[in-house]
Amino acid sequence: MAMGEFDLIDHYFRPLQRPAGRNAADIVTGIGDDAAVLAVPAGFQLVAALDTLVEGVHFPVGSPARSIGHRALAVNLSDLAAMGADPAWYLLSLTLPRIDEEFLGELASGMQALADRHDIALVGGDTTRGPLSVSVQALGLIRPGEALLRAGGGAGDLLFVSGSTGDAAAGLQLEMRGSAGSLTDADGNPAAHALRQRFLYPAPRVALGRALRGLASACIDVSDGLAADALKLATASGLGVRVEADRLPLTAALRATSGEEKGLFQALSGGDDYELCFSVTATRLPELAERLLTADCAATCIGVLESEPGLRVVRDGRMLNLPSAGFDHFTGSD
Amino acid sequence: MAMGEFDLIDHYFRPLQRPAGRNAADIVTGIGDDAAVLAVPAGFQLVAALDTLVEGVHFPVGSPARSIGHRALAVNLSDLAAMGADPAWYLLSLTLPRIDEEFLGELASGMQALADRHDIALVGGDTTRGPLSVSVQALGLIRPGEALLRAGGGAGDLLFVSGSTGDAAAGLQLEMRGSAGSLTDADGNPAAHALRQRFLYPAPRVALGRALRGLASACIDVSDGLAADALKLATASGLGVRVEADRLPLTAALRATSGEEKGLFQALSGGDDYELCFSVTATRLPELAERLLTADCAATCIGVLESEPGLRVVRDGRMLNLPSAGFDHFTGSD
Repeated sequence: MAMGEFDLIDHYFRPLQRPAGRNAADIVTGIGDDAAVLAVPAGFQLVAALDTLVEGVHFPVGSPARSIGHRALAVNLSDLAAMGADPAWYLLSLTLPRIDEEFLGELASGMQALADRHDIALVGGDTTRGPLSVSVQALGLIRPGEALLRAGGGAGDLLFVSGSTGDAAAGLQLEMRGSAGSLTDADGNPAAHALRQRFLYPAPRVALGRALRGLASACIDVSDGLAADALKLATASGLGVRVEADRLPLTAALRATSGEEKGLFQALSGGDDYELCFSVTATRLPELAERLLTADCAATCIGVLESEPGLRVVRDGRMLNLPSAGFDHFTGSD
Repeated sequence: MAMGEFDLIDHYFRPLQRPAGRNAADIVTGIGDDAAVLAVPAGFQLVAALDTLVEGVHFPVGSPARSIGHRALAVNLSDLAAMGADPAWYLLSLTLPRIDEEFLGELASGMQALADRHDIALVGGDTTRGPLSVSVQALGLIRPGEALLRAGGGAGDLLFVSGSTGDAAAGLQLEMRGSAGSLTDADGNPAAHALRQRFLYPAPRVALGRALRGLASACIDVSDGLAADALKLATASGLGVRVEADRLPLTAALRATSGEEKGLFQALSGGDDYELCFSVTATRLPELAERLLTADCAATCIGVLESEPGLRVVRDGRMLNLPSAGFDHFTGSD
């Protein structure tokens, strides 16, 4: 017997209302009413992000349900991280072509594992029939004045990126080619496996976002490609940016799989990294070093904000011409 | 030249950030950063709803863009209304098969007209390419303890519905049959026109929701059919419900177009009404009358909450058997 919409929500998603560590007292009314009622603690502002993943656009047709659930929440957590916010609650709007209980179970479980890690509670949403897509709306909390904006950078501020970029783009390419896990893993190619995992299960930089509060002059999450997102940060700050391509932290897996040239391009222009790109005034670098240690997160200085508008990518002292300013879902460049 | 994702958001949707009457001071950071930062006023709780409209499921293929924009926001405002909340902010996640500027302009303008009426500000979201669907996440405010829940009804409480139901279902049927406006209007059939408008441009009962605070014992918005939603309210309250079919407020347009029998069925089981269904203790009926006057909204007593679980629809003293418990997007009943 087919489960109805309401049973379905209950069965798979009600358990997500109570992640491991979260105090539930702030959820006045959760799943099951017309809307959620939430108590925002005194002294906090609300941070709200809404992002949708569409099959065939944000993930290949046939992606593992667990990855889809993970990524739908991760991209929103990444938005909260880029603001320096503490995740609190999320809502889920799920559009499915049909009820497939195994799919739903995997989707919910991918979402729950990530939600537990970041202590964010599901409080509502809806499900409907249609082409597969997943909208998540994440709500976070921050003290007034502490949000990391794109617009605060100053000329001369140093530009950093957390972790590494390019892996997810290379991983997506492997996924698209149908280099299924069994093949590459059996091939004994751990590099390919690592890259695919970076695409399928990105780790939003929530702890780093917190650590950068009151320190980073500007911050953005890297979803559309490092160069494009660095330019957005610079433009929002009324500045331009110079990126030193030689400094980009390419992983060994990326170098091994894509080679140096293509790997560099993927690190600059590939999407789906969900790292943080941020600027810091030079005088505060010692503080940054301390905070990175505390957050247990690596970051690399890759450039500098400059007063001349636009993006300049420099390699071996020469200007690189990037074929595109990054990934744009509409113009279709990649 | 195709507009990119970011220009597109800016051009059509940035104006929606500042509705006519709204004080913008509570929007600390709006459209254009990774997430919105919002100041929740002291003494208020947050009310959050997320609903998606999918082409071919929630509206017929080829629906007017203005109606799609209106309805995407309206269904969420209706959720806030059902909680008794004051609308404050919304986010929009738009999935479009292609950029069509006329479509976008109409969509934005349908959304803006309704947003202005209810003083709710667009603060963020995203756009992507894919099968047409619109997710709106609405945020409202309410004082602690004032939210109208589904769960508060008591046995013996009288059940009311605002306005009238069934018109939208009849209007949708006319839309689906392709009874285009030009035909029915030229026919001099204002009834058909009125029904179609009820489907295309539902009016969320925000003022009524406010007026019912501290008075209604339970409340739900009617989106899946009056009988099904009344049963949801009763079940959440640990009760059952008896609906007197003869009391249902069918409009003259519905009677004229659908006839008495089918009209009654549509009023009971049709979806998309976005009226409020609520319960009130009998001793407080004088207060209800006053508040309905203040809110300038009609409501009709259609039944009573009873301790025996389940739904009983009675007509001329006999029990009616409803073919379905209402609209469910998955089981596909209508």
